[in-house]
This record gives sequence, C-alpha cells and structure tokens, in this order.
Amino acid sequence: MTTIKDVAAYCNVAVSTVSRVLNNHPDVSPDTRARVLDAVRVLHYVPNSSARDLVLPQTDSIGLVVRGAENPFFTPVIRAVEGSCEAAGYSMVLHQIPAGADEVAEGAALAMSKRLRGLILLGGRYDYTQQEVSSIGVPFVCCTHTNHFGDLDRTAFSSVSVDDKAEAIRAVQLLLDRGHTDIAILLDDRDDHSISERRYKGYCETLRAAGIEPDDDLVIETGSFVMGAAYRATADFLARRRNFTAIFAIADTMAIAALKALHDAGLRVPEDCSVIAIDGIEMSNYTIPTLSTLSQPQATLGEEAVRILVDVLEGKAGHRHVRLETTLRPGGTVGSR
Amino acid sequence: MTTIKDVAAYCNVAVSTVSRVLNNHPDVSPDTRARVLDAVRVLHYVPNSSARDLVLPQTDSIGLVVRGAENPFFTPVIRAVEGSCEAAGYSMVLHQIPAGADEVAEGAALAMSKRLRGLILLGGRYDYTQQEVSSIGVPFVCCTHTNHFGDLDRTAFSSVSVDDKAEAIRAVQLLLDRGHTDIAILLDDRDDHSISERRYKGYCETLRAAGIEPDDDLVIETGSFVMGAAYRATADFLARRRNFTAIFAIADTMAIAALKALHDAGLRVPEDCSVIAIDGIEMSNYTIPTLSTLSQPQATLGEEAVRILVDVLEGKAGHRHVRLETTLRPGGTVGSR
Repeated sequence: MTTIKDVAAYCNVAVSTVSRVLNNHPDVSPDTRARVLDAVRVLHYVPNSSARDLVLPQTDSIGLVVRGAENPFFTPVIRAVEGSCEAAGYSMVLHQIPAGADEVAEGAALAMSKRLRGLILLGGRYDYTQQEVSSIGVPFVCCTHTNHFGDLDRTAFSSVSVDDKAEAIRAVQLLLDRGHTDIAILLDDRDDHSISERRYKGYCETLRAAGIEPDDDLVIETGSFVMGAAYRATADFLARRRNFTAIFAIADTMAIAALKALHDAGLRVPEDCSVIAIDGIEMSNYTIPTLSTLSQPQATLGEEAVRILVDVLEGKAGHRHVRLETTLRPGGTVGSR
Repeated sequence: MTTIKDVAAYCNVAVSTVSRVLNNHPDVSPDTRARVLDAVRVLHYVPNSSARDLVLPQTDSIGLVVRGAENPFFTPVIRAVEGSCEAAGYSMVLHQIPAGADEVAEGAALAMSKRLRGLILLGGRYDYTQQEVSSIGVPFVCCTHTNHFGDLDRTAFSSVSVDDKAEAIRAVQLLLDRGHTDIAILLDDRDDHSISERRYKGYCETLRAAGIEPDDDLVIETGSFVMGAAYRATADFLARRRNFTAIFAIADTMAIAALKALHDAGLRVPEDCSVIAIDGIEMSNYTIPTLSTLSQPQATLGEEAVRILVDVLEGKAGHRHVRLETTLRPGGTVGSR
C-alpha cells in the first residue's frame, strides 16, 4: 500500500507539500503540483479519505472528464451533465483531455485535488483493470462507453451507453437491405479495445451472417478521431480501391470528412457510394445530402449518467448499467445498389 | 445598498439560509438555492466579501460562463481557457447558459456561490451598464465581445475579441472586389446591440462607400444563432427574392445552414450565389465547397482572456482591451460575378 510518504519521497518534496496539493491549496507552484500528481498516478496512491475529511469538508462537486473534447458529439452531453448536476444540487467540475490521454489517471488526480464526490468519464477506453481504477477512490460512471474488455466487477462502477455492436449491426444491415455487398468501414483502429473494435465486430458479424467474408482491404483506419485524419484515410483508400458501393462510418464527424473526400474524388453520394454513420450530431443535418445516421440520445446519456451517480452517492441505489438505443435519421446518403 | 436581510425578506427565508447559499453549503434544497440566487440578481445584492473571507478561504477558481454553449465556435475557446487556467495554477468552473440568457446575472451568482477569484464571459451582450455589473464583485474579462453599446468604464473590465465592424468590412469588401453588388446579409438581429448590430454596421458602411445603398430586403434575420433558424430564414428569403448574387453570413454555423438552403432551392454555390462568413470552425473545412471564411484565432482568444485575468488578479497589470485579427481561409464558396 502506497503511503503519502512514498509519494513525497518519489518526487523529492515534503509530505506537507503533497498534502497541500491533494487538498488543493493555492500556495503550490504549478510545476510542483504537476510532479506530485504524476507521482500519485504512477504509484497508484489512494489517499486516506477519512483522515482528509477531518480537516476539510467534502465538496458538492462531481467531476466530468471529457476525453476528446474537440468532438462535437460531446457538446450536448456536457450541457446535459451540467444541467442535471445543478438540478440535483451538485456542481460540475469539467476537465477536458485529448483523445489519446489516460482518463482514469486524470480522473483520479482530479477527484483528489478537487475533493470530488464522484466522477463521470465521458468517452473513455473499454478495458479498465480493477487495479487501475482503485486510484479513483470515488464512485464513477462511464458515459458513452462500457468496460467490455476490462476486468472490473460490474457492481463496482456504472455505465450508460448505446450497445456499440448492436448499433453497428443495425447500420450495416440497413446497407445490406439496400443491396450493398461491398461495404467499407471507416474507423479509428480495429484493435483499439474500445469503440472502434466493438463496432468493427458488429460489422464483421453482420457481413458473415449474410454470407460475405469481411475483406481487410475494405477497412479504412484513421488512427484518430480527428476529422483531418478521416479525410486523408478516405482519400488514400479511394486512390487504391473503387470497387465498393458503401461506407459505414463509426462516427458522424468521420462520415462528414468522408463525404468531402468522396466529393473531391469525383464520386457522387448516394449514386456512386452510400454512407451511413452513428451519432446524430446537429451539424450532420446540414451536409449535402443530409447524413443518414443512427442518432444517439445525447442529452439522455448525460442526464442518465448524473441520475445514476447521484443515486449511488446518496445511497438510493447501487451501481447499474444502462443501455440506450439510437433512432434512425434517414437522411439522403443511403441509396439502393 | 441592498443587505443580506433584504435578500432574506424578499424570498421569505432566514438570513442564515441566504448565507448558506452564498457560501455554497450543500444542505440547501435546489429550489431554495434557486430562489435565493434569483433574489440576489433582482436586488443587485453585492455580498460583503471581506466578512465572507473571515469565514472561508478564497478559492483558486476562475468562472467561465458560456452563453450559447451549443455553438461549436466556443469548443476550442473553452479548451484553451481550461488549459491556460491550469497552467497558471487556477481551476476553471464552467457554466453553460442558453444564447438568450443573462450572462451578467448568471456570472454574478456563480462568482458568489463558488467564491470565484474572477470571471470570463464567453459570448455575451455588448451593452452592459455599470450598475448591472456591480453585482459581479470580482474582476471579469469579456471574451469574443466588447462593450460598444454600454456605459462601462474601460478601466473596470477587460475584453479580448476581434473588431466586429472591421472584419465585416473586410468580408463584404472581398465580395465587392469580385464584382458582387446585390449582397445579402445573414444575421441574428440587426438591432441586437450586440455582434449582429456591429457586423451589420460594417456591412452597410462598406456598401455605402462603394456607392450602394443598403437594401432592407437583403437582410435575412434569423432571430437566433440556432442552425435551424438560419436554414428556415434563408429558405424563406429564397422563396421571395432571387436577384442577388452573394450572402455574407456573420457566423460559420449560419453559413453552413445557408449552403444547405441554397442547395435545397436548386442554387449552385458559387456559380449562382457566393457565400462568405466569419469564424473558421473546424467543421466548415468540410462543407462542399469548403466555406470561404475569416478565421478567428479561437485558441488565442481563450489564452489571452486567461492571461489578462490572471495579470489583474495577481496585480501585475490593470484591465486591458485586446483586439485580435482574423485570417482569410479562401475556401471555394466565393466566385466572381
């Protein structure tokens, strides 16, 4: 068990300095604060919260860690989380991190330094380990993701999300029903142990059920959720392969970038290529044609995450796992083969 | 001078209850909290902060009130504010409010209830009065707006934004230079005492300098910054008028909705109608054609707001007013007449 002395020794500061950082005193330099929080992460230090509570009152704050804050999909979710926190008498502390960052370590550090009551992790990995999350130290809810690849005890955390595999099956089936058989998939990374891998599994299963062997050459991997990466990956794909008639994009932002790449390569949507996605962000109502997509209930995802966390914090219910469903917005990017 | 007793009497609660709300104690019902904060706003109550400071330490928090949080233009600004706050050793407390809400009252209530050091108001009105802002009680910075129509003493607050009128002049001049003379403007409300009015003034001045009398019939007013409103207003305009060759949209989101309305009405961009905007959001790189727009330095706006506020808080400098410039992203939506 790591103690506060271990943390102090690791970063060569006094125990009182570590204490000041963990209790969020302003009289610590940003550099020292960063070093102490790094040590806390590396050493998996769990503070003795009963000792802390003697000194400082618990706050009424819930932390929201947003991984990949540039994704417009999250904007209405963040809004709903803030509104629901306020309605329930809690404050929301927002922390935005890049898409590739470690939301568990960042969340753990935030929970300690801000003395949070609980955490909502928005847009995270699907493979948390029990040891890794032990550093969080407060109840948490995974919002928009589950823990399919990890070893967490399901009673020790909550989640609210759509069923990624089932929704991917639905999207690909819609394309099959319109006569498409050569269907490409646009995703981040098929082995990411996360959202891409789950949706890729759904894609493969649907094709196989229809007697079609998935073709590695029809996988367009972007390596990131950044729109520029989706544009370039689609453009590269179009430069090497043309015998396909549809793209399933795992996110609206990727689909919007793909529509642009298809246009720039001289292909018409949906005449030459159909496109379907999952998300339903506001902007995809205004693509030309309107994007065909499975809309996620963005506000409900945020509201439900807060409801679950508040129930746990107030002892009204234990942890639970909620699956929500998408709604098809037909749009105009899917045509018949 | 309003006292805490006046506030308690106004909402029929005990003085101790008002005190608990202002000091952010968790043991107040959400309903009572809302009533007390409403009374604080209505009565322009300014708490005696030196008395408060005897009881509770000041936090290291800076509040960010985002007015119109659904606007994707703000996402990179919010990200930059959070990063800059953290780098300077402060926490950011986010509060998102609808586009029509009163950011001064909301900011004042937030500053009190969270015991903030300072405030950044992102996307606000341009007509604050001295009396109105007295309730804020902490230093504040207007980010993306100035106080052109209000009576604030310039040494009592800071601002960082582009020069709305100058940027509108630049956009309209670009259209004039390509031979356009019948130029429509797409805006929220030409008399809003805010961003729309400033940019509308720039539009009128540029036309007049070119010998063109602005035509009321070429003003497309949406009444809001919501994309759906911009789409409907443009569609209504196109149903009644076709003898124009260009649209200046005061925001990228409005321009993206207009591109869709033009397409749905059978008009080609830029052959039948040119479109230029101001903002430079990421999404407008992916419209077809790419939107021609004057890009605002979104991250710099956020960074600069924090730098100014921290300088004021730490006594390193007084309030100041910074004007930043846009950069033309040529795009493909502007053609020659």
